Amino acid sequence: MVSLTHSFPIPRWVLLTGSNRGIGLGLVKQLLRTPRPPAWIFATCRDPAGPRAQVSAGKGWGFSSGLLQLNDVADPSTITKAVKIVEEKLNGTGLNLLINNAGIYNSEASLERVDAEEMIKTYKTNVVGPLLMAQAFLPLLKKAAQESTEKGLSCSRAAIINISTMLGSIEKTPQCFFKPVISYRCSKAALNMLTRCQALTYREAGILCVALHPGWVKTDMGGQEVGPSQVQGTAPGQSQAETQVWGDWMEQS
Amino acid sequence: MVSLTHSFPIPRWVLLTGSNRGIGLGLVKQLLRTPRPPAWIFATCRDPAGPRAQVSAGKGWGFSSGLLQLNDVADPSTITKAVKIVEEKLNGTGLNLLINNAGIYNSEASLERVDAEEMIKTYKTNVVGPLLMAQAFLPLLKKAAQESTEKGLSCSRAAIINISTMLGSIEKTPQCFFKPVISYRCSKAALNMLTRCQALTYREAGILCVALHPGWVKTDMGGQEVGPSQVQGTAPGQSQAETQVWGDWMEQS
Repeated sequence: MVSLTHSFPIPRWVLLTGSNRGIGLGLVKQLLRTPRPPAWIFATCRDPAGPRAQVSAGKGWGFSSGLLQLNDVADPSTITKAVKIVEEKLNGTGLNLLINNAGIYNSEASLERVDAEEMIKTYKTNVVGPLLMAQAFLPLLKKAAQESTEKGLSCSRAAIINISTMLGSIEKTPQCFFKPVISYRCSKAALNMLTRCQALTYREAGILCVALHPGWVKTDMGGQEVGPSQVQGTAPGQSQAETQVWGDWMEQS
Repeated sequence: MVSLTHSFPIPRWVLLTGSNRGIGLGLVKQLLRTPRPPAWIFATCRDPAGPRAQVSAGKGWGFSSGLLQLNDVADPSTITKAVKIVEEKLNGTGLNLLINNAGIYNSEASLERVDAEEMIKTYKTNVVGPLLMAQAFLPLLKKAAQESTEKGLSCSRAAIINISTMLGSIEKTPQCFFKPVISYRCSKAALNMLTRCQALTYREAGILCVALHPGWVKTDMGGQEVGPSQVQGTAPGQSQAETQVWGDWMEQS
């Protein structure tokens, strides 16, 4: 377990998708435990009242965060509603950090078994979702970049972080082909491309765009086979386990 | 114009998608002009009777090739029909080469403008199509690999060629970001990943899998801005122009 005692600047206003469990939940916890936590975390998930929405119990952690429903990260009308709620809360301020963390994964999607429906469903959530979220929150991110006294690109000024994976690296595929997960790999390779295009396009507006591999984390998605060299996440029933990804990220960015 | 006088072995049985124009049409022409052309080319396209189906006029070139309707490369039922027709013609022999050439491109798909529909439509044709085609024709490709007296991997034994593009290279994006074409870039990055997975999976069965960047070719898709350093393709009205991609491919493979 790694505690976040780094002195990096923490963004003031953060929006994160898929915050109800796994890496998303771990990130919310870690951010809130930093010495100077964000002013507000818009912790979104599909079903804030659902059985997996652990973050809704987070009131007990004493943090200032609102759990926001976002039924489908790839549905424009759902996103538009979320933007309105966020704008109201921000009250004229910009959004510093958008973390596109929500994603899906099918461990059975081998080359033989995967079908069109599975491929498209995964692409929609893992690629189209982050694209539409970035489009919708771009004005607020630009505002944050303009308002900031910071120079250069940083998470505390204005940034989009797309949670990717080593499984999306074409170069590294031969070293990590233990599970084919074709729909997931293809979607994450595409997400990496999207991030590269966003980085090139939004750099001038002062927005940092990065795709990040958080390590293999013990979550519902990551499974229970995570070895000692991998990262301990926030699997259900392991509430004390933490993810160290946040600290690593801030150092990288 | 480059004529194909190379002495590389030409596959006997070839299936190619998107053969009615552009690179697909150029490939059919080039293959048929080699000293020892394939026994048969299954030249598929969406609408063999349509105004753009130039290959249907290819009877005049004196080649043994059948134009095969394939309405939608991402539609399983359409593919199943095509497999039956091909099996019948092959009469117990395997298919040596599948070229997934059909693809779509939207030059207006910038980060600001591209929407969910455009993203998914492009992914379906450019990634899901090649995946389903490979799944469906895999038994025939395996048969060709088994029947062959050749050792190692080659296009003349058994191969899948997925037509990709430099625009799908994440590494090279900064050098070629003259047009954002987000839906296209993301789909081709995913196609490159798919090809890598296919190569790792099908190698043991003796099937070569490669993704290829054919160069910037003057076609309907490539546009008319192609400079002298780029490759002349087979744009309508330029029937004498040829693409050199085939010769380059065979040398690479």
